[in-house]
Amino acid sequence: MPTRPSVLNVLFDYIEENKNKFINKLKIAVSIPSVSCDQAHRKDVIKMMTWMMDQLTALNVTAELHDIGLQEFSNGTTLKLPPVILGSLGNDHEKPTVCVYGHLDVQPAALSDGWNTDPFELVIKDGKMYGRGSTDDKGPAISWLHVVEAFKNTNSELPVNLKFCFEGMEESGSEGLDKLLISRKDTFFKDVDYVCISDNYWLGTSKPCITYGLRGLCYFFVEVTCASKDLHSGIYGGTINEAMSDLIALLNTLLDKDGEILIPGIMEDVEIISPEEQKMYSNIDFDIDAYKNELGSPQLLHDKKEDLLMARWRYPSLSIHGIEGGFSEPGSKTVIPRKVIGKFSIRLVPYQKPDKVENIVRDHLIKQWKLRGSSNSLKITMNGSSPAWKSNPLHPHYTAAAKAIKYVYKTDPDLTREGGSIPVAITFQDIIEKNVLLLPMGSCDDGAHSQNEKLNINNYIEGTKMMTAYLYEVGLLGKNNH
Amino acid sequence: MPTRPSVLNVLFDYIEENKNKFINKLKIAVSIPSVSCDQAHRKDVIKMMTWMMDQLTALNVTAELHDIGLQEFSNGTTLKLPPVILGSLGNDHEKPTVCVYGHLDVQPAALSDGWNTDPFELVIKDGKMYGRGSTDDKGPAISWLHVVEAFKNTNSELPVNLKFCFEGMEESGSEGLDKLLISRKDTFFKDVDYVCISDNYWLGTSKPCITYGLRGLCYFFVEVTCASKDLHSGIYGGTINEAMSDLIALLNTLLDKDGEILIPGIMEDVEIISPEEQKMYSNIDFDIDAYKNELGSPQLLHDKKEDLLMARWRYPSLSIHGIEGGFSEPGSKTVIPRKVIGKFSIRLVPYQKPDKVENIVRDHLIKQWKLRGSSNSLKITMNGSSPAWKSNPLHPHYTAAAKAIKYVYKTDPDLTREGGSIPVAITFQDIIEKNVLLLPMGSCDDGAHSQNEKLNINNYIEGTKMMTAYLYEVGLLGKNNH
Repeated sequence: MPTRPSVLNVLFDYIEENKNKFINKLKIAVSIPSVSCDQAHRKDVIKMMTWMMDQLTALNVTAELHDIGLQEFSNGTTLKLPPVILGSLGNDHEKPTVCVYGHLDVQPAALSDGWNTDPFELVIKDGKMYGRGSTDDKGPAISWLHVVEAFKNTNSELPVNLKFCFEGMEESGSEGLDKLLISRKDTFFKDVDYVCISDNYWLGTSKPCITYGLRGLCYFFVEVTCASKDLHSGIYGGTINEAMSDLIALLNTLLDKDGEILIPGIMEDVEIISPEEQKMYSNIDFDIDAYKNELGSPQLLHDKKEDLLMARWRYPSLSIHGIEGGFSEPGSKTVIPRKVIGKFSIRLVPYQKPDKVENIVRDHLIKQWKLRGSSNSLKITMNGSSPAWKSNPLHPHYTAAAKAIKYVYKTDPDLTREGGSIPVAITFQDIIEKNVLLLPMGSCDDGAHSQNEKLNINNYIEGTKMMTAYLYEVGLLGKNNH
Repeated sequence: MPTRPSVLNVLFDYIEENKNKFINKLKIAVSIPSVSCDQAHRKDVIKMMTWMMDQLTALNVTAELHDIGLQEFSNGTTLKLPPVILGSLGNDHEKPTVCVYGHLDVQPAALSDGWNTDPFELVIKDGKMYGRGSTDDKGPAISWLHVVEAFKNTNSELPVNLKFCFEGMEESGSEGLDKLLISRKDTFFKDVDYVCISDNYWLGTSKPCITYGLRGLCYFFVEVTCASKDLHSGIYGGTINEAMSDLIALLNTLLDKDGEILIPGIMEDVEIISPEEQKMYSNIDFDIDAYKNELGSPQLLHDKKEDLLMARWRYPSLSIHGIEGGFSEPGSKTVIPRKVIGKFSIRLVPYQKPDKVENIVRDHLIKQWKLRGSSNSLKITMNGSSPAWKSNPLHPHYTAAAKAIKYVYKTDPDLTREGGSIPVAITFQDIIEKNVLLLPMGSCDDGAHSQNEKLNINNYIEGTKMMTAYLYEVGLLGKNNH
C-alpha cells in the first residue's frame, strides 16, 4: 500500500468539506432537462452547455462554445445542434496534457415511465442521488469542475495541463462532434497526451475499475407501409395485408429464443478468444447473483460468470427497442397502423465494421422480406453507428490511474470492458491518435437510461478524489512517449 | 318512384335553410376533445354530455344524465364514467316509439399523428368537414337534434314517440352502458318498438345503405416482463432474454402472410355460406378499385368483390395494433424495455362466442409460450369483448327505412353488413329485445378512427333529411308487432 502524498490529503480534505456544495451543483445540472433526442428540449441542452461554460470560466478555464452546425431530420427539417465546449487550463510545456471528456445531455425520462420522483429534480434518499443524468453523465462531467476547484482553492499546483471537451449530443450519437474534433486535431488537441473519459460504470457496486474496451453500435429502423392512412380495424380488417404483421415477422427473424443473433455472417469478424483472455475473465471480481438481482430477471442467458462477462464485452448482441407508429399508449385502440417502424440495434465488438454489419443486416432483411412475399413497402435505414473500441490495459496511463484509485479505494481496480458504446473513445484513439482511458465513477446499479437513475453520494465524492489523484499520478508520469 | 309527401317537403326545406346553423352546431361539438380512452380528457367527455343535455332540453326533450359508476384501471385506480343521457319526447299511445342511439366520445387524435389541421377544430374544405368525431359519431348523433328541431319549428307533428340514448364511452367498449340499459329494460325502454343507430358508413361514397349486421370484437393484451426496470442495451444486451423478442415471437404466431388467423379452432363456429348469401354479395354495388385507392394499399388480400365483402362482413379478422412499453417515439433509444404489452384484436362474426374465443386465444398463446420455453413472465388479458350482431333485413322496419331513403336519395339502398362493432346493437336486440336497424349517414371514405376524419356536408344535410323521412315512415308503420 503506497503512502498517500500530502498534497492529495489536502485536496481530499477540501473535497470532503465541500461535499454539500458539489451536491447542490449537481442539483442544478439535473434540473435542466437536456434531452438531446427530443427537439422540444434542444433549448434545454443549449442552456445546459451555457451553464457549463459559466462554471468553467469562473475557474479561469479559457473555454469556447463551438457551433457544430445543423441536425437534419428525415422529414427534411433541420435544427441547430447544441454547441460543443472546448476549454484549456494551463500551458506548461514541462507538464503532460490531459483531455477530459464528458457529456451534458441525457436520455428522455418522465414520471409516467415509472420513476418514483420527478426525474429532473435531484432527490436524495439513503445516500443515493436520484435524477436523470445524475450518473450519465452530469455527475462525472461536473466533477472535473470540483477537481479544478480543489486545486485552485487549496493553492495546489495543477500537475497537468487540462483540456476540456464537453458535448450535448452523446445520447443521440454524438452528432457533429467527430467533425469538430478532427478539424482541431492539429490545433486544440495537438499537445494532448492522455484522454480520460468518465462516462461508464463499475462492474459491481463496491470495487472500482478502469475500462479499456467498449462495444460499438449499429442502430436500425425497419419501416413497413401498408396504406396511405391509419385504418379502422373493424371496417378494413381482413382485407389488407397489415404492415404490423409484416414488421413483426421480419423482427422475428433477428434473434432466437436464447438471444443468439440469426443474421448470417454476424459472427464472422468477432475475435477468437485466446487462453490468456479466457483466464482474465476468471480473475474479475463479479457477483452474478447481484447482477441478476439488480436486473430483476428470473433467468439470465448465461449462468457462468465468464460467459456472462464475455456476452457483455466481447460478443455482439441485438436488442429490439420498440415499434413506432403503432398504438403504444395504455388502453385499447382498434387501429390498423398505416406505417410502422421497428427499431433494433446491434452492439459491435472489436474488428466488426459498421459498414459491413449494415450490409449483412440489410441483406438478411431483404432476403426475409422476399421470402415473405409481401405487397407492402419496406425501407431499411441505419440510423447511426460506431465501431467498438479497445485499448491496451498495460499502458503506463492505465498503471497511473490504477495507482490513483488505490489512494482512494485502497484496492487495485479491475480492468474491465463495457457493453455500451462511447463513440468518442474511438475518435480520440484512432483519429485524434491519443491514448484513451475510461475512469468510471458510478456503480453498476445506477440505472443509466432507466427509471430512477441515481448516483451514490459516496461514488460522487470519492470519485472526485479519484479524478484528483488521477491528475496527480499522470503529472508524475509525464508526457506520453509510449 | 313514390311521390314525396308534402310534410316531408316542408321539413326538408327547413333542413336545407338551416344548413349553416347545423354545421356551426357540429363545429361546437367537434371542438370538445371528448376522447374517452384518455383519462386526462374525461372532463371533456363529461362536458360533451352536458352540452348535449342542454341541446335536448332546449327542444323540450325530458332528459336526464345517468351516473353509471366508476371505471376501474389495472393499477387499481378508478375514475368516474361519463354519464349516459336518456331522454323522451312524446308519449302518444297510438304512435310507435323509436329509440335513437348515438355516442359523443371520440378516438384520440393529434396533429402529430398526421392530421392536416387541428383535429378538434372543424375545418371545411371542398364540401368536407374535417375534425375528430365529425362522422364518428358527433355528426350523426346531433343530427337527431336537427330532426326534432325541424318538426318543432315547422309545426309538424312528430309521427313517433322518441327515446334518446347517448353515451360517452363507445370508443372504450361502452363501459357501464349495458348495465344501465338492462336496468331500464322494463321502464324507460318498455314501449320502444324500434331502435335506430346511426354510427356506421356507406359501403361506398355515393349509394346509401341500411346495415343489418356487425362484427363483434375480442381485444387482447399480451404482456411479457423480463426485468424489474428498463435496461441499457449496451450494458445488459446479450445477458438477458429480452421481453420484446419473446413478445414478437408470440405475436408472429397469430397470422400468416395472407392475413389468415393461425389460432386453431378460430373458424369453428363461423356460419357456412349458403347459395342465397353468396348471391347477395354479387348484387351489392361496390367498387373494389375505389376501395383500394381509398386505403392507398398496393394490394388487397382479395381481388374479387364478393370475397372482399365477405372478408369484411362474415369472416373474423385479426389486427395487431401496437406494442406498449417499448420505445415508440421518433428517433433512437437504446433501451431494453422491462415490460412490453402487445395489443391485438379479433373481429367476431355471428355465432362466435367471445368466451370461447378468449379460451382458444389463451390456449394458443400459452401453447406457443411453452414451445418457446421462455423464462420471462407472460400475462394474457382480454380487455373487452362483444359478440357480432345480425338482424333480419326483410323486417318491415327495414322496408320503412328503405322507403325513407328513396325519398331523399332517389334510389334503393343496399342492404349491407359492417366489419366494425357497435356492442350496443346486440344489447338492444338480444337483451332489451327490440328490433335494431343501422342507418348510416357518412361515406366509406370518412376516415373514422383515422387521420383527417371528415363528414361531407352533403351526407350531413341529406342524412338529416333521411332521418326525418325515416321517422315519418316508421310513424306510418305503426307499432312493432313483428
